[in-house]
Amino acid sequence: MDNFVALFLIISSLFTTSVIADWNILKQRWSRNGVGDSLKNYCESWRMNVEVSNIRGFSVVPQECVGHVKKYMTSTQYKADSKRAAEEIKLYFSGCCTLKGDGKDAWIFDIDETLLSTIPYYNKHGFGGEKLNSTSFEAWIKESTAPALDHTLEIFHEIKNRGFKIFLISSRRETLRSATVDNLIKVGYHGWSNLMLRALDDELMEVKKYQSKMRQRLVDEGYRIWGIVGDQWSSFEGLPSAKRAFKLPNSMYHIA
Amino acid sequence: MDNFVALFLIISSLFTTSVIADWNILKQRWSRNGVGDSLKNYCESWRMNVEVSNIRGFSVVPQECVGHVKKYMTSTQYKADSKRAAEEIKLYFSGCCTLKGDGKDAWIFDIDETLLSTIPYYNKHGFGGEKLNSTSFEAWIKESTAPALDHTLEIFHEIKNRGFKIFLISSRRETLRSATVDNLIKVGYHGWSNLMLRALDDELMEVKKYQSKMRQRLVDEGYRIWGIVGDQWSSFEGLPSAKRAFKLPNSMYHIA
Repeated sequence: MDNFVALFLIISSLFTTSVIADWNILKQRWSRNGVGDSLKNYCESWRMNVEVSNIRGFSVVPQECVGHVKKYMTSTQYKADSKRAAEEIKLYFSGCCTLKGDGKDAWIFDIDETLLSTIPYYNKHGFGGEKLNSTSFEAWIKESTAPALDHTLEIFHEIKNRGFKIFLISSRRETLRSATVDNLIKVGYHGWSNLMLRALDDELMEVKKYQSKMRQRLVDEGYRIWGIVGDQWSSFEGLPSAKRAFKLPNSMYHIA
Repeated sequence: MDNFVALFLIISSLFTTSVIADWNILKQRWSRNGVGDSLKNYCESWRMNVEVSNIRGFSVVPQECVGHVKKYMTSTQYKADSKRAAEEIKLYFSGCCTLKGDGKDAWIFDIDETLLSTIPYYNKHGFGGEKLNSTSFEAWIKESTAPALDHTLEIFHEIKNRGFKIFLISSRRETLRSATVDNLIKVGYHGWSNLMLRALDDELMEVKKYQSKMRQRLVDEGYRIWGIVGDQWSSFEGLPSAKRAFKLPNSMYHIA
């Protein structure tokens, strides 16, 4: 009996010790979450205020929030947010517009973080926590390896098939045209009417003004701009405006 | 010895059982979180797309997301988001504007979910999950018990002290004037230049158009509108626009 009891005691104690060890790890984890909560709140409020354009013109993501931005931009939440935006775009273009069939019904898309994802580049360059190095960024663009954003790829073709003429307006420079076209085609985009890139004259212009100028050019040519899809407020603001603008998420960088 | 061992065994077993019980509760919780993740993503993407105005014109919060909205609107995250917006407003008005000192430098505030919080009402009415009952909502407004949003209260006075004239433009009806004034004063707001409410003529007008009309009136009177703070995009859109608009969070309702 004594032996049996002793054995049971040892096993029971070992089990207790193991469960308690897990329990302690767990408590530590909870406690860390407790400590981390206010930083998480802080960084999430930074991200949220960037998205609604209360925070503008930052040149780098605050160092303490780089981890938060990385986590978001590589999360299922980022995908869910983009998907939901695509669904709303679909809802709009399915019922919005009486197309005249004169080839003047237009739709505009941004490129980076809209048609293509530059996350693979930012993944190697601090997720917005490092100031953008144009030379290295443009070298990466020239590789033409940016993946498509799946939900935008899908609506791009649906919008085109509905009879809208598609215009791509990007702040990428004119020198990047062939790399950009290669990349777009490689991942499945085709059939746009015009790819508008920044000419030498436009390079010193604020992107917001450049975007307005390009839209003005379309309006002057008789186009009706039914929608814009982009990740930057500078693609929507100013006149002439589109009937609807759809904002895709991006907390890695801001273009004024 | 046998008694001692038996006692130790009993205590040890009781302890083990108790820890295991907690452990099981915890595992259930984790598992629930796992199952809940995609609903959480879904509702968060709904909320996010409402905030950036991709989703418009909903009359009720989707039933499956009412819990998520309630959680957010009563969370430290909602407070952090509002606080961060207030900090950005402060940053802007501290350096933005060369005031002429002619009494024509204006700033506009919304009322609900901007100066005052209607969360106590929505807390009793499904956090946006029930269609708004104007009669019961207006009866609640007449109680004049809406609390201030602390961060807005602070910047309200700072903006006023800087020499801006403050205009409150609300879609509350003219009949609610005295209850609104009572409520505002009770929680610490005073010194605004004009409280603009919806007259009988304006009640059938779309709120967005009504808001534009009120801004046009100010511009016609010679005011320069430096900023608007509101929780609805319909308070910012259309012409004339303010130099800057600041969006406060609100996922309980949408005003077109």
